[in-house]
Amino acid sequence: MPLYLSAPDAVALVRRKGLKNCIAGIADNIRADFLRWPDFDKSARVANHSKDGVIELMPISDDTAYSFKYVNGHPKNTAIGLSTVMAFGVLADVATGAPTLVSELTLTTAMRTAATSALAAKTLARPDSRVMALIGNGAQSEFQAIAFQHLVGIDTVRLFDIDPQATAKLVANLSGSGLSLQVCTSAAEAVQGADIVTTVTADKACATIVTADMLAPGMHINAVGGDCPGKTELAARVLQAAKVFVEFTPQTRIEGDIQQMPADFAVTELWEVLNGSRTGRESDAQITVFDSVGFALEDFSALRFMHDAALALGYGERLALIPQMTDPKNLFGTLLDGQANAAPIHLQPQAVAMA
Amino acid sequence: MPLYLSAPDAVALVRRKGLKNCIAGIADNIRADFLRWPDFDKSARVANHSKDGVIELMPISDDTAYSFKYVNGHPKNTAIGLSTVMAFGVLADVATGAPTLVSELTLTTAMRTAATSALAAKTLARPDSRVMALIGNGAQSEFQAIAFQHLVGIDTVRLFDIDPQATAKLVANLSGSGLSLQVCTSAAEAVQGADIVTTVTADKACATIVTADMLAPGMHINAVGGDCPGKTELAARVLQAAKVFVEFTPQTRIEGDIQQMPADFAVTELWEVLNGSRTGRESDAQITVFDSVGFALEDFSALRFMHDAALALGYGERLALIPQMTDPKNLFGTLLDGQANAAPIHLQPQAVAMA
Repeated sequence: MPLYLSAPDAVALVRRKGLKNCIAGIADNIRADFLRWPDFDKSARVANHSKDGVIELMPISDDTAYSFKYVNGHPKNTAIGLSTVMAFGVLADVATGAPTLVSELTLTTAMRTAATSALAAKTLARPDSRVMALIGNGAQSEFQAIAFQHLVGIDTVRLFDIDPQATAKLVANLSGSGLSLQVCTSAAEAVQGADIVTTVTADKACATIVTADMLAPGMHINAVGGDCPGKTELAARVLQAAKVFVEFTPQTRIEGDIQQMPADFAVTELWEVLNGSRTGRESDAQITVFDSVGFALEDFSALRFMHDAALALGYGERLALIPQMTDPKNLFGTLLDGQANAAPIHLQPQAVAMA
Repeated sequence: MPLYLSAPDAVALVRRKGLKNCIAGIADNIRADFLRWPDFDKSARVANHSKDGVIELMPISDDTAYSFKYVNGHPKNTAIGLSTVMAFGVLADVATGAPTLVSELTLTTAMRTAATSALAAKTLARPDSRVMALIGNGAQSEFQAIAFQHLVGIDTVRLFDIDPQATAKLVANLSGSGLSLQVCTSAAEAVQGADIVTTVTADKACATIVTADMLAPGMHINAVGGDCPGKTELAARVLQAAKVFVEFTPQTRIEGDIQQMPADFAVTELWEVLNGSRTGRESDAQITVFDSVGFALEDFSALRFMHDAALALGYGERLALIPQMTDPKNLFGTLLDGQANAAPIHLQPQAVAMA
């Protein structure tokens, strides 16, 4: 039976290990998995688009393990008290197809996105980067700040959001973090003096959060929010002025900021820089862009981190999602003698909450 | 929070409602959904193939509801006490992306496959069909027999499996069903005198369970087991001799028995026959083939049946898979004040079972 890691369990696990340690551990897993990139059976995610959002499935596997993530993106959700992004995921055994973990991925996605951004910045930004602009101060923003503080060496974050309450929330949440937090009144102001610019905005629109006039030599742009068709954050001239790095090119051409560029617009995949087969930043003055959309391999890496941590620390419980049968060819028999009812752990009936 | 319907809960629900009633209810849902076929955002399933099997994701949505199924196919699993096919699925709200149901789909897949087969046979087989050959007597076979008995009017089933124990299991399971069960020593013998031939074998191989010499005028062939690349059950000459019906053409050309035919081999989609826009069987002598591979819409229909039934009868419990937050933009806050820990229902800690 698969382990089930609920949202409360994931919160408890992260609180126990510490957020920065979890992000660092996930980043280590992502790096290790990106270094064996050719081992994976990769595909662009499957998206069902609707008027107000998208629901996506993101599968990936190597010879031994399989994972997928379910994730939505509905920017209007916050108006009715729901998250813009909700996610869960599964690990499975490739040899048998049996699921081994069912886990929340809302919190974990925030950690893995921040881990990926920080890993890319550590690889691509100038090593002396200390100041980051953080544009979009919603649910993902604090995770980006903490990841860049601990993995990249950022000490100052310049904040902007069209919703001042979002910025106020971030400032309150990170007041004890040791980061210097500078609240700005526009994206342009936030970008001034920044070594790194992180955009993590939620609107499903072709926006231009960063325009060419904001650029300074040597800047690294971590573009996180432009991640589905019709949803961009960078002006085309920003991309033209920069060397652009991506996760998985076929997916990023559809979903990333480069969706607005010609199909042959030159990009470099991050894993190629990590393994040394291609060059990253070529000079201190070059502008680099990490056009991040979120790739299934990062969820694979993060799920394995959470699975290992949950097993090591005793979090989670078993889920009777698959019938337990003495004779697997006798599925029908479960209806005759109720043997499936005798599965060793049946979640508690008192947890039933019916309308 | 989504409703969670475990395998034991699904078994209990089906035992309470009765298997034939569940299959009939699912068949009604499938018919209703096939009649509004153009309403759905359809795609071929995403498959990760490995040495011994395949893991697939099958998403589909209309304007209001989304579903996907996770399902594997590992024929060697039974040798180590696991099911060949294990499945679970999710329903979600298209407007918000929030999951509404997490359900077992191993048992439910067997019911929906049988419901689809029976719906196709009721539409395509001669109305006076009473005798069915059932080749492959594994986990899916009893469900096929019950569905054909109650929805199509079959009274006699002629059985064959290369594993005599599988046939013995089927005979024991269906001894009180009212069906006349005739055990045969070969596929060819089982097919003799049959109005309908159902093949539901598991080997991942290009097999020829049914060959042209076994055909009789007016036969309907319900080919269920040929359902992924490299896995077929019918000889090419059987397909050439018949009028062939499919679920979703782009998927069946890859996965169905017609994978061995040219890309322009003529097929008719079942929904077109159901809504009267295309002809089904053209004469009592014509041979018809339903080249079934299993389509996401059938799982959508089945998940909605199980969801409605679970809500009506009080089965299932709520799953804290998504963080519950007072401010959805404040995901980070869950780590500071533990508000996600205050989710109203946290599955019981005593259910933890760690290695």
